[in-house]
Amino acid sequence: MRVIVCLPADDAVPWLDLFAAALPDARVERREPDAPVAAGAPRADYVVAACPCRTVFAEQPAPKAVFTVSAGVAHALRLPNLPAGVPLIRVEDAGMAPQMVRYALAAVLRAALRLDAYAAQQRAARWEQHAPRAPASLAVGVLGLGVIGGEIARALAAQGFAVRGHARTRKAVAGVRCCAGDAELAAFLGGLAVLVSVVPHTPETTGLLDRAALSRLADGAHVVNMGRGSVLVEDDLIALLDSGKLSGATLDVFRAEPLPPEHPFWRRPEIAVTPHVAGLTIPEDTVAQIAAKIGRLERNLPVTGVVDRERGY
Amino acid sequence: MRVIVCLPADDAVPWLDLFAAALPDARVERREPDAPVAAGAPRADYVVAACPCRTVFAEQPAPKAVFTVSAGVAHALRLPNLPAGVPLIRVEDAGMAPQMVRYALAAVLRAALRLDAYAAQQRAARWEQHAPRAPASLAVGVLGLGVIGGEIARALAAQGFAVRGHARTRKAVAGVRCCAGDAELAAFLGGLAVLVSVVPHTPETTGLLDRAALSRLADGAHVVNMGRGSVLVEDDLIALLDSGKLSGATLDVFRAEPLPPEHPFWRRPEIAVTPHVAGLTIPEDTVAQIAAKIGRLERNLPVTGVVDRERGY
Repeated sequence: MRVIVCLPADDAVPWLDLFAAALPDARVERREPDAPVAAGAPRADYVVAACPCRTVFAEQPAPKAVFTVSAGVAHALRLPNLPAGVPLIRVEDAGMAPQMVRYALAAVLRAALRLDAYAAQQRAARWEQHAPRAPASLAVGVLGLGVIGGEIARALAAQGFAVRGHARTRKAVAGVRCCAGDAELAAFLGGLAVLVSVVPHTPETTGLLDRAALSRLADGAHVVNMGRGSVLVEDDLIALLDSGKLSGATLDVFRAEPLPPEHPFWRRPEIAVTPHVAGLTIPEDTVAQIAAKIGRLERNLPVTGVVDRERGY
Repeated sequence: MRVIVCLPADDAVPWLDLFAAALPDARVERREPDAPVAAGAPRADYVVAACPCRTVFAEQPAPKAVFTVSAGVAHALRLPNLPAGVPLIRVEDAGMAPQMVRYALAAVLRAALRLDAYAAQQRAARWEQHAPRAPASLAVGVLGLGVIGGEIARALAAQGFAVRGHARTRKAVAGVRCCAGDAELAAFLGGLAVLVSVVPHTPETTGLLDRAALSRLADGAHVVNMGRGSVLVEDDLIALLDSGKLSGATLDVFRAEPLPPEHPFWRRPEIAVTPHVAGLTIPEDTVAQIAAKIGRLERNLPVTGVVDRERGY
């Protein structure tokens, strides 16, 4: 069996060694991204798109499956020549859900406890207590109720917040008011004190959180984006912070990553910027998951995580 | 029935109105703190020490009980003439435990996710990911395992941290390694990545977290003090931050409160200062609890929360 891993030579993660160890019977080969097409290259059984590569499918038009090493697949869907009939398989929660729950809890608790306001008081050496807010009086919304969003909603409800969730289709999460589809989006957003977005990048979610949508939140609301950067219209967020409609944001994902040094987000004290770390891929877990799926495919067994290319995830 | 409430005229909380509403059959009277002793003042059934008053017990030597409006009673125990045989009754968890759990979770998650380090990177517009740390690899210790400490330990264990607890006597908390007494304090502290102190002020806890104790924590540890300020030797904390042994602290309580404007804590970016808000008294809940206890005492029924003056809480 031959496995091609698209991977720059200087990648921080030793993907090649990990795959070689997890697939001892396979030939695991690295392909430099965008390397020239080699005529007559031997046929690969599987392609792992550890980074985008615009030439690999000209060389490998018919692998048994293509894997990404992340939950997001937007970059893979944009690859030219991605073979139409070949399953594209994304990473499913490789240790990621509890990690994203911790990030969401940290961000929502910080907003609910007004810790940013207290940090501002600290800079002025000012001792002033604000009355505590009962969490049941704070509406917190989770946009996207997949595996990860569902876990986040449950964890927030366990802390006593009044939690709503929104997904394309109706979901059921204990203790969470679940809204569905475009028809209920306005009601979902209306009056939220904190909005947590975990939706993936798709044509439908691009620019979803724009001025109109964010204006539906409660005055002084806080926005957490830990899904994909394309969902948020960044200029609209800044305008609503400037106008005082919103009080702050916690952002882990951005339109352009790495966030360019001149981007205004870096210099806003009311925005917490983290470098796409809320749900870091744990390489060992990811490779183990892909190796197990290759094992199933080799035995003609079905696998989960196959991307619906129409839907985009 | 006559109830005296020691209370400055300009207090932010309308204690007098709340007690009058909760005890419709009582005469509820305010006493200015340290007001001169009035000879022949009518006998009060209960004294509520909403603030320290050095003269009230010269006037009222034999109330049926003395109440504080906080969980901490150190200030009340220091009052001159506090009648020896009269029960001193503290506030027990009036909505405070879940509130303190939220504060502890926010502080521990922030440390575990290195959000202070990312905030420092943000100030330099630097995009750099750090490998995620599995919470099971982080030892988090809760010093003090009463009602509140026990809830905090449980909530931290639910997030996957390796949680230890310490109390004077052996406690049992599911998923938490419980240490007891002086003999096990060093083992409790040893190698903790985060220490959360919720112990009350007593002669035994004063200065407990000194240089020797804090030096037992893991290198780069984070200290959360949300119990009482007297527990922490503040100069020792600063020395250990300066030496790099500790990486940061989240402090809600201090030796002197309000924290004086010239105190160095205000100006340390690695210390988060909050103005004693982790467990704010919710006045309505507190008054309801005291009124219910007065009702029981009037019917000669036992009440909880009676302070052991030897133990100090």
